[in-house]
Amino acid sequence: MLAAALADGSGSRRCSFEVFARRLPDGRRYGVVAGTARLLDALARFRFGEPELEIVGKFLDERTLDWLRNYRFSGDIDGYREGELYFPGSPILTVRATFAEGVLLETLALSILNHDSAIASAAARMVSAADGRTMIEMGSRRTHEIAAPASSRAAYLAGFTATSNLEAVRRYGVPGTGTSAHAFVLLHSDTDGAGEAEAFRTQVEVQGVGTTLLVDTYDITEGVKTAIEVAGPELGGVRIDSGDLGVLARQVRQQLDDLGATKTKIVLSGDLDEYAIAALRAEPVDAYGVGTSLVTGSGAPTADMVYKLVEVDGVPVAKRSSHKESRGGTKRAVRLSRDTGTIVEELIFPAASPQPDGGEFQSRELQTPLVRGGELVPELPTLEQSRELVASGLVSLPWEGLKLSRGEPAIPTTYSS
Amino acid sequence: MLAAALADGSGSRRCSFEVFARRLPDGRRYGVVAGTARLLDALARFRFGEPELEIVGKFLDERTLDWLRNYRFSGDIDGYREGELYFPGSPILTVRATFAEGVLLETLALSILNHDSAIASAAARMVSAADGRTMIEMGSRRTHEIAAPASSRAAYLAGFTATSNLEAVRRYGVPGTGTSAHAFVLLHSDTDGAGEAEAFRTQVEVQGVGTTLLVDTYDITEGVKTAIEVAGPELGGVRIDSGDLGVLARQVRQQLDDLGATKTKIVLSGDLDEYAIAALRAEPVDAYGVGTSLVTGSGAPTADMVYKLVEVDGVPVAKRSSHKESRGGTKRAVRLSRDTGTIVEELIFPAASPQPDGGEFQSRELQTPLVRGGELVPELPTLEQSRELVASGLVSLPWEGLKLSRGEPAIPTTYSS
Repeated sequence: MLAAALADGSGSRRCSFEVFARRLPDGRRYGVVAGTARLLDALARFRFGEPELEIVGKFLDERTLDWLRNYRFSGDIDGYREGELYFPGSPILTVRATFAEGVLLETLALSILNHDSAIASAAARMVSAADGRTMIEMGSRRTHEIAAPASSRAAYLAGFTATSNLEAVRRYGVPGTGTSAHAFVLLHSDTDGAGEAEAFRTQVEVQGVGTTLLVDTYDITEGVKTAIEVAGPELGGVRIDSGDLGVLARQVRQQLDDLGATKTKIVLSGDLDEYAIAALRAEPVDAYGVGTSLVTGSGAPTADMVYKLVEVDGVPVAKRSSHKESRGGTKRAVRLSRDTGTIVEELIFPAASPQPDGGEFQSRELQTPLVRGGELVPELPTLEQSRELVASGLVSLPWEGLKLSRGEPAIPTTYSS
Repeated sequence: MLAAALADGSGSRRCSFEVFARRLPDGRRYGVVAGTARLLDALARFRFGEPELEIVGKFLDERTLDWLRNYRFSGDIDGYREGELYFPGSPILTVRATFAEGVLLETLALSILNHDSAIASAAARMVSAADGRTMIEMGSRRTHEIAAPASSRAAYLAGFTATSNLEAVRRYGVPGTGTSAHAFVLLHSDTDGAGEAEAFRTQVEVQGVGTTLLVDTYDITEGVKTAIEVAGPELGGVRIDSGDLGVLARQVRQQLDDLGATKTKIVLSGDLDEYAIAALRAEPVDAYGVGTSLVTGSGAPTADMVYKLVEVDGVPVAKRSSHKESRGGTKRAVRLSRDTGTIVEELIFPAASPQPDGGEFQSRELQTPLVRGGELVPELPTLEQSRELVASGLVSLPWEGLKLSRGEPAIPTTYSS
C-alpha cells in the first residue's frame, strides 16, 4: 500500500484517520480509554532501522525504502484523554497526516489502544464491584510476558491499588505488592502440614508481622490458628486462594476476631472476576487479588477498535460494504451531562463545525491535542491524573451504567451534521 | 518468598517444579505446546541488572540483592517438545533446581507458555477446519504490540501459512504476506467508487498482476469487474472482507470464471474463527485471513497452565486445598498409540520409575532434555520441525479429537504409581 501510494503520488494527500469502536464488547455499558501515553511514547521511537529495512527490502522498491529510512511522523494527533470513558463511535484518536505517514500508524495505534483499553475496561468493572476494597493485580502469569506490565499499568489506571509485577513498578511507577505462594509453605513441609509454622515464622521474621500469610495450603482453620500463633494478633493479613470464598471469609473473620486479631485483613484470590467480586460484597473481605480475568479482559481481550481513513484532502470518505459502514469526515465529540454531573449523551460532530448547542445540559469537549507537527504537546496527563479521570468518569455514569449485566451502552451516541 | 527462603536456608533445597494445565480451556479436545523456544531464549537472557535491582532494593535485604545480582539459572529443564499436543495433567515442563533458582522462573515460564500455547491451540483448530487452504494471520492490531509477533509465530507453528506481521518475519522467519486495505481504495476516491480503478491500477503496476485486490469497498460485483478490467484474467486474487462470505464467495467465483479469471484466488477475511471457517468448507474459497479470533485464542486467551512445586529434596509435595489438588512428585509421560498411529492415552508416571509397559500399544516418551546445568542442550528443534510436529500430532488424533464442539479431551490422561 505504501509503495503504491508513493508511486502514484496519492501518498502525499492530506488525510484524517480515526480510531473508534463500532460497539462495546460483550454487552458492556462503557469502555475506558487506555494506552494513549504508551502510544505517544512508542510514536516518538517509531523508526525503521537497518534490521527492519533489510526484511522489507526483499519486496519494496528503493524509493519506498528511502522513505522508510527517513520516516518521522510529522502530523497532528488529537484524542480522548487517557482514562476517559468511551462509547460506540467515540472518536478516540484522530491522526491528521499525509496518507503515507498516517497509514503506517494503524497497527501501532490499534495494538496498544486495543490491548490497554480492554484491560482497563474490565478492570474498571472489577473496581466498581469491589466498592472501595483494595484490588491487587496478579495476572502476569496468564498473559504475554511484555503485555504483563502493560496490563498492570492499565489495571492501576482503572483503579486497582497495586500490582505483583515488579517490572510495572519499574516502568510505570505502579505501586507494587505481593504475598507468598503455596510453594513457600510446601518447601518447608517434610510431611503434610508439618512445615506450615516454619514457613510462616521465616516469612514474619523477614517481612515483619505486617506481612500476609497464605493459610490454605492444607487446612484453613489450622492455617489461621498457626498464623496467629506465629505472628501474634498484629498479623497484617491472611490470604485464601481456594474453596468457597464467601463462606471461608466469614469463618476466618470470626476465627481471627476470636483470636484477638481483629485488624488482620482477609485477602481473597483464585479465579475472581467482576461477578465473583460483586457476589462477595456482603462478606468481610478486605482485599482481592485478581489474575486471569483481569489480563484477559474478562471475556473481551481486545477492545475491537478500528483505524479508519475518514477524510482525504478535505473530502469525507467512507466504505459502503454491508454491515461495516463507517461515517466519513473528521470528527470531534462532546459529552453532555446534567448539573448533577450525571452524563446523558455522547454527541459527535464534524470537526470543522462549531460545537453544537447542548441545550439544557453541560457540555465538555472530549478531544485534546496530543501531537502537533510530530512533537508531543507539553504537559500530557500523568498516570495518576488519568487514574483520577477514570474515577471521576465512573462517578458520572447513570446508575444503569455500573450494572455488570449485559445491556446497552450507558449513554447514547448521537451524530450532528 | 525468595528473601525468606534465603534467610532460613530452605532456598537451597533441591526442588522440582512442574508446568501443567489442570484442564483444557473451553471444552477443547487437545492443546498445542508453544513458546518453548521463546522461553529458552528468554531464560538465557534472564538477569537482574541495576535498573531492576534498584526497584527491588526498596524492599529486599542486601543478601537477597547480591543473590539476584549474581543470578544465573544453573539447573536442569525437561519438557515436551514445542509443537507437541498436550492434555490435562501433561507435565509440559519440569524444572529441577534449588528452590531459589526455580521459583524465580514461574512468571517467565508461565507467561510465555500460556500465551503462545493459547494462540497455537486455537490456530490448530482453525487450520484443521480450513482443510488445507491457505491461512494468513492478520491479527496484530487486536493484541499487545509485542505479543503480536509472538502470536504470528504461534500461528505459523500450528500450521498457518503466513503472517502480515513483518516483525514476525524478521524475528522468527515466519513467511510474510499481505493485501491492501480499504483505506487505499478510499484514498483514490474523489466521489464514491470513482477511484477504485485508479487504486487497483497503481497496486497492479507496483506489485504485479499476482497481487490480491480488495474488492468490497463499494459494490462487490463492480469491484470484481473493475479488478479484472484493470489486471486482466491473470490477477492473483481478490479479497472480500464483509458480507455473507459464503454467498459472496460463490457469486464471485462464478463471476471470475465468466470473466476468464479461472485461476484468480478468493481470499476471505472479516471476523473469521474456526466455526466460520468450518461453515465455509463447501465454498470456493482459496485462503482465509484470520485476525481477532486468532490472537485472542478464540475464546481462550490463556492456556491456564500452572507452575507447581512438586518435590523437595526427593520428597513429593502437594497442596490439599479444595478443588485445586495437585499430584506431588516429579513426573514423566508417555503417549500410547495404535499401530495405525492413532493415539489412545497419555500415561504419566513417577520420573524415578521405569517406563510403564504400554501393553498392546506403541509408547513414545514425551519429555526431552532442554537445559542441563543451566545450558541449553544442543540441537533443539527448529520452528519448522515444531511445525511438522503439530501437523503429525493432528493426524494422530482419534477422529473425535478434531471436532470443534465442546467435549472431553481427545484421549484420557492416566497416572501410574
